[in-house]
Amino acid sequence: MKHEFPNGREILARLAPVRGGGVPDPDARRIFALVAWSVLVEPGDGVAGRLVAGLGPEEALQCVVARRLDASAADAAGVTPAEFTAGIARWSPRLDVREVATALDTAARARIRLLVPGDPEWPALVDDLGAHAPLCLWVRGNLTALAGAEPAVALVGARAATGYGEHVAMEFGAELAGRGVTVVSGAAYGIDGMAHRATLAAGGRTLALLAGGVDRPYPAGHANLLERIASSGAVVSEVPCGGAPTKWRFLMRNRLIAALGSATVVVEAGWRSGSLNTAGHAATLGRPLGAVPGPVTSAASAGCHRLLREFDARCVTSVDDVMELLGATLSGRLDAREAGGPTSDDTRVLDALSVRAWRETADVARRSGLGIAEVEGILGVLSLDGTALRDERGWRRTATTM
Amino acid sequence: MKHEFPNGREILARLAPVRGGGVPDPDARRIFALVAWSVLVEPGDGVAGRLVAGLGPEEALQCVVARRLDASAADAAGVTPAEFTAGIARWSPRLDVREVATALDTAARARIRLLVPGDPEWPALVDDLGAHAPLCLWVRGNLTALAGAEPAVALVGARAATGYGEHVAMEFGAELAGRGVTVVSGAAYGIDGMAHRATLAAGGRTLALLAGGVDRPYPAGHANLLERIASSGAVVSEVPCGGAPTKWRFLMRNRLIAALGSATVVVEAGWRSGSLNTAGHAATLGRPLGAVPGPVTSAASAGCHRLLREFDARCVTSVDDVMELLGATLSGRLDAREAGGPTSDDTRVLDALSVRAWRETADVARRSGLGIAEVEGILGVLSLDGTALRDERGWRRTATTM
Repeated sequence: MKHEFPNGREILARLAPVRGGGVPDPDARRIFALVAWSVLVEPGDGVAGRLVAGLGPEEALQCVVARRLDASAADAAGVTPAEFTAGIARWSPRLDVREVATALDTAARARIRLLVPGDPEWPALVDDLGAHAPLCLWVRGNLTALAGAEPAVALVGARAATGYGEHVAMEFGAELAGRGVTVVSGAAYGIDGMAHRATLAAGGRTLALLAGGVDRPYPAGHANLLERIASSGAVVSEVPCGGAPTKWRFLMRNRLIAALGSATVVVEAGWRSGSLNTAGHAATLGRPLGAVPGPVTSAASAGCHRLLREFDARCVTSVDDVMELLGATLSGRLDAREAGGPTSDDTRVLDALSVRAWRETADVARRSGLGIAEVEGILGVLSLDGTALRDERGWRRTATTM
Repeated sequence: MKHEFPNGREILARLAPVRGGGVPDPDARRIFALVAWSVLVEPGDGVAGRLVAGLGPEEALQCVVARRLDASAADAAGVTPAEFTAGIARWSPRLDVREVATALDTAARARIRLLVPGDPEWPALVDDLGAHAPLCLWVRGNLTALAGAEPAVALVGARAATGYGEHVAMEFGAELAGRGVTVVSGAAYGIDGMAHRATLAAGGRTLALLAGGVDRPYPAGHANLLERIASSGAVVSEVPCGGAPTKWRFLMRNRLIAALGSATVVVEAGWRSGSLNTAGHAATLGRPLGAVPGPVTSAASAGCHRLLREFDARCVTSVDDVMELLGATLSGRLDAREAGGPTSDDTRVLDALSVRAWRETADVARRSGLGIAEVEGILGVLSLDGTALRDERGWRRTATTM
């Protein structure tokens, strides 16, 4: 790493403003390393995610600085030598500790707070993204708005909205606010903006997820709206302060919108709208997906109809329908809790999972001595719970369980 | 029966005009009996359907006249004594042979033709209705339009249509005509009328199914339209000439619309629209069901959205989508034909079916020596084919197979 890693005292000083005061010493280096990681990588970097999950952020960072991953570490993280080499190539141009300091200082000046996994306000829902979960979150506004005490719905749609779409977004935003549901969206013009505005107007709570740093209002025309969102809810990004909203970061931002909503509803979307990307993330996460139909003669509804036809989205015509979607997720989670914890088969599956290594379903079945279909069902329930995480490489157990 | 059954010569004379000329003697009494049945019963009378299928129309009619069903006949028809007694109570007020003569004479004067099962122009699709299939059909227009040489789509919707719905019905009707698809509908104001009109304007073929006799244009305001439909397609009813379009007959007429379309598409429908009844029949028949979405703010689309939400209808936005629905049915039938007829398991299942008695799936499984799930799958394929018929009482084989 270019320039020396700061000493303990300096790290504590840099972290204090973004952590709302003193940071316990053992946490400080881990948090600083997570910030370093968020500076190094683009959002959703699965190799980085696996290294950090498998080795912890500090050890993972040392491997990058040393450009060396020994066999046992590679095994624990489930990262191949080729993946590590490619990762180093991606990350090394940003390997400068001054960038980390700049990110922290910029955030401090803008009164932006930093959340890391394990914080009480950390939104557990994003952990469903597995290796693609954010490493940290930068928050402008209220940390508690993120904690997920309230049910939340992702309400998204096209920038090129029609009067019809904006009307629906307005109705839904206002009614959801009235029912105590947090509205998650992307602060874009069109549907997103209307959803935020209507929620605020009805005295509700709303979260705006940005593709760039939260110190840079985007779009600029929504600077005022973003300020209002932050005053009661939160404006959130995984990209450090100063970061530009690139095309890639928009796509990855969409996964956070989908992850933070217990359900996603697309209000209006063209045939190739970015909202379909958000919808795709919701589907991948196994979150209920709804689409609001519109006239078949309206290009602004073509994407919604595509979701109904091709992605098996639920047809959503009212906030009652949205609540039903939401109920599907929440009751799933509640049922599991009410049942009083894991069954004996759940325990066998959890025993067969590793906290560090990703294991394929067949492997989990072998280790647990259960059938593959049975294991798949149990893993599905455990992932709803947040107890098991899924990745394209397989499954692993979250560190906090059992 | 009040008044004597006419003699052979009189039957031949009465039938000739509605049958397009001479009627072979052995057929004449069967056809006359079917007309008598269609005068006796309301559409969709399942007990009548089972008696006629099980005993043949003449023997079944004799049982009604004699008010007596012996045990072997009851068994062959699958009709209980209580059902027969209730049937007699329903039918006996109409047991007057003069009504049959009147129905035939009225039809003859209006140049209306009579189709019965077994006629080359008889639409095989209606036999999927099993015991609820029509006993005969009265046709104003071209008999060949009914034969099902062309693929057909039921295009239906609310009388209280909006400009949007009428626009969609017009586009769909015209495009389906252009692709050689027959459009089946109910000649009502609103969506139905627009579907017929657009099909005719594009030079296509359309069928109108009426709830009352085809000699009574209904609604009266569509007299001209019905005449135009008859000139290239056909106006059809199972209710004899002179019959009034009652509420019940509308509901039963809807089952014929659904049965005559290889797929049903609802263009616009209110929350309690009669089109949902047609959609329900299509679903019961296992025919693909589509619904055209519209603005969630439009009451005229609420029924379509209900179909999307509650009945798993496909979201249909264009005629390409309709063709896809249609393809699902047609390719199913073609696959079966291309496969070169029944497999050996198909034959075992057909052997286990009776032409007369309805048998439950478990019984068919026992008789064929195959598993219940296997038998269910095979019966599904055979019913697509029209080889096996399903009823709430079970399954039977069509008389013409094997």
